[in-house]
Amino acid sequence: MEAGPPGSARPAEPGPCLSGQRGADHTASASLQSVAGTEPGRHPQAVAAVLPAGGCGERMGVPTPKQFCPILERPLISYTLQALERVCWIKDIVVAVTGENMEVMKSIIQKYQHKRISLVEAGVTRHRSIFNGLKALAEDQINSKLSKPEVVIIHDAVRPFVEEGVLLKVVTAAKEHGAAGAIRPLVSTVISPSADGCLDYSLERARHRASEMPQAFLFDVIYEAYQQCSDYDLEFGTECLQLALKYCCTKAKLVEGSTDLWKVTYKRDLYAAESIIKERISQEICVVMDTEEDNKHVGHLLEEVLKSELNVHFLDFKLVPPSQKMENLMQIREFAKEVKERNILLYGLLISYPQDDQKLQESLRQGAIIIASLIKERNSGLIGQLLIA
Amino acid sequence: MEAGPPGSARPAEPGPCLSGQRGADHTASASLQSVAGTEPGRHPQAVAAVLPAGGCGERMGVPTPKQFCPILERPLISYTLQALERVCWIKDIVVAVTGENMEVMKSIIQKYQHKRISLVEAGVTRHRSIFNGLKALAEDQINSKLSKPEVVIIHDAVRPFVEEGVLLKVVTAAKEHGAAGAIRPLVSTVISPSADGCLDYSLERARHRASEMPQAFLFDVIYEAYQQCSDYDLEFGTECLQLALKYCCTKAKLVEGSTDLWKVTYKRDLYAAESIIKERISQEICVVMDTEEDNKHVGHLLEEVLKSELNVHFLDFKLVPPSQKMENLMQIREFAKEVKERNILLYGLLISYPQDDQKLQESLRQGAIIIASLIKERNSGLIGQLLIA
Repeated sequence: MEAGPPGSARPAEPGPCLSGQRGADHTASASLQSVAGTEPGRHPQAVAAVLPAGGCGERMGVPTPKQFCPILERPLISYTLQALERVCWIKDIVVAVTGENMEVMKSIIQKYQHKRISLVEAGVTRHRSIFNGLKALAEDQINSKLSKPEVVIIHDAVRPFVEEGVLLKVVTAAKEHGAAGAIRPLVSTVISPSADGCLDYSLERARHRASEMPQAFLFDVIYEAYQQCSDYDLEFGTECLQLALKYCCTKAKLVEGSTDLWKVTYKRDLYAAESIIKERISQEICVVMDTEEDNKHVGHLLEEVLKSELNVHFLDFKLVPPSQKMENLMQIREFAKEVKERNILLYGLLISYPQDDQKLQESLRQGAIIIASLIKERNSGLIGQLLIA
Repeated sequence: MEAGPPGSARPAEPGPCLSGQRGADHTASASLQSVAGTEPGRHPQAVAAVLPAGGCGERMGVPTPKQFCPILERPLISYTLQALERVCWIKDIVVAVTGENMEVMKSIIQKYQHKRISLVEAGVTRHRSIFNGLKALAEDQINSKLSKPEVVIIHDAVRPFVEEGVLLKVVTAAKEHGAAGAIRPLVSTVISPSADGCLDYSLERARHRASEMPQAFLFDVIYEAYQQCSDYDLEFGTECLQLALKYCCTKAKLVEGSTDLWKVTYKRDLYAAESIIKERISQEICVVMDTEEDNKHVGHLLEEVLKSELNVHFLDFKLVPPSQKMENLMQIREFAKEVKERNILLYGLLISYPQDDQKLQESLRQGAIIIASLIKERNSGLIGQLLIA
């Protein structure tokens, strides 16, 4: 059994551009032309993205900066890059990383075959990193493959679940308003402490929002703002929209984002991200069965039980003999180790099919529970085991 | 192998009061007397807690209210109640639930043997639910086991990881200041939208905090505030500290809380909570081994490998023959089903021990990986399986 073929829709695998293949993104793709400005005479590279990734992740409580923390053995930032790469109309992605993580970042790009990525050195603060990214896009350097975009998206390396829909919304709004950013309702009430650590005042929750990412800007607006802004802003500021307002009098359009936009900040967020990715991967499975010709109905019965157990959107179910390598049960474990290199988790499952209909149903139900468990948990410690239903 | 004995420190099991048994809580216990006011002449029931649990969980995107969502088959609110019950000096816990969930709540209390709980009917808003809880504590009803506390803690049903330390801090501060609440740094910048959906202004992140739970109040202060406050406050307010400030001129002391205080709000928070609970449970395991006398060293070698693999704080490792029920391998599955009722997940693991030292080490390492996987994932779909290392 394979827990999902190495297909393009799997977050664990770098895939080709998916826009147009997915329901929610279809609308997005339809509007691409106007966003990317690909009509004749317009600059074809109209949208770029800047990803500050120079943080040290002190809030995570782990030594690895959070953007490099592994989720299912793949660094968090790689999921975010993949989410941006899937959007065909983002022509360049500029990532700002610290000097000491430059080689790590290069190896991630190579390993997961990321495309359209340029690396710049991060600054000591988030704003300085973004500024460095913008400079790289602004300058017409010789031999540089980068050129100035009309609109630039600013996103966080630690928000891996950004969808094309919200990217399109902020880019469209930025074209009209000069700046735009995603917002979310506040989860907690915000208060202001007095100097002695007591409550000074609390804000009305309904009148305020959390400013999230992605944000988008007309390149000239945000670049001008960064060039104008003070050292204090660059050191202590947290909000790009505020810079556009303060230095370019540009009032950003606020766009309601989905819950998926949240920032991976604490260790619990890594847990949540892992569960979300597991759930997404588990929506497609491939079961390879070895059933004798006269017991084919068992396979079909199992398929029925599985569908109700797994809640999968698509089920690729093949009644084929297993590969030669699996014929000898003792070799399953070696074969499992081999295919794990290709991110395929292989387990053996023996389903008994007694003549008694009730017992058969029980056996199939047990088999479905085991398959569902294995797929949901993606437990690589158990590959190559022969389980009994 | 048992994934943890049904011991008192396991979140999945209702346990006796643990204060004093755990490192961090030792200090807390030492200060109990002054907090609970148990010196002669003082009211012995000085601290109570009110838990509004009337929410419908609309943000979760699931039909079950989030406080009743299962985590490892146990409702979220039960973990929160357990966290409060463990604190001996909280004498009464008043939970406000809607009429339609009253029976569900009663069955949870019975199933998980929660003590010191009183139920009141929730109001249509959070503030009204809290008010109902306070009324139950204020009134000296005939046959009521409740009596007016000196200090009341207000907590959320959906913040299951509250520790005794922070409860003690807010209660102590409330005694001194009249009101106190836990706060956390803001994760996102907070902005205010204008009427046309554009950025009006953004707040300086460093000057603001998120107001979290628990909070604590002198009972007379918060009860007075609720009696005085307007219908508008009861309908649209979100902040108890604000009521104490507005109606009793009581400036709450703000106490820095830990990251664990976060509120389970979205589906991803359920994932995170599940992972945290799994991780906590996995810190204690019990391995029952069946080794022949002359192969005892294999058991000790496995113990060594396990310790490095599992990162457990405590390991109960027994070299004993398995129960009669497990002697027949075919009966493991039946036995596993039986003990699952008592929340014990039982798996079989066969470890080969070849004479070749290198092969033995490899086999043990494989065994340790399998054990670690099973314990970490708590995969109940695989109980009763015989795995091979």
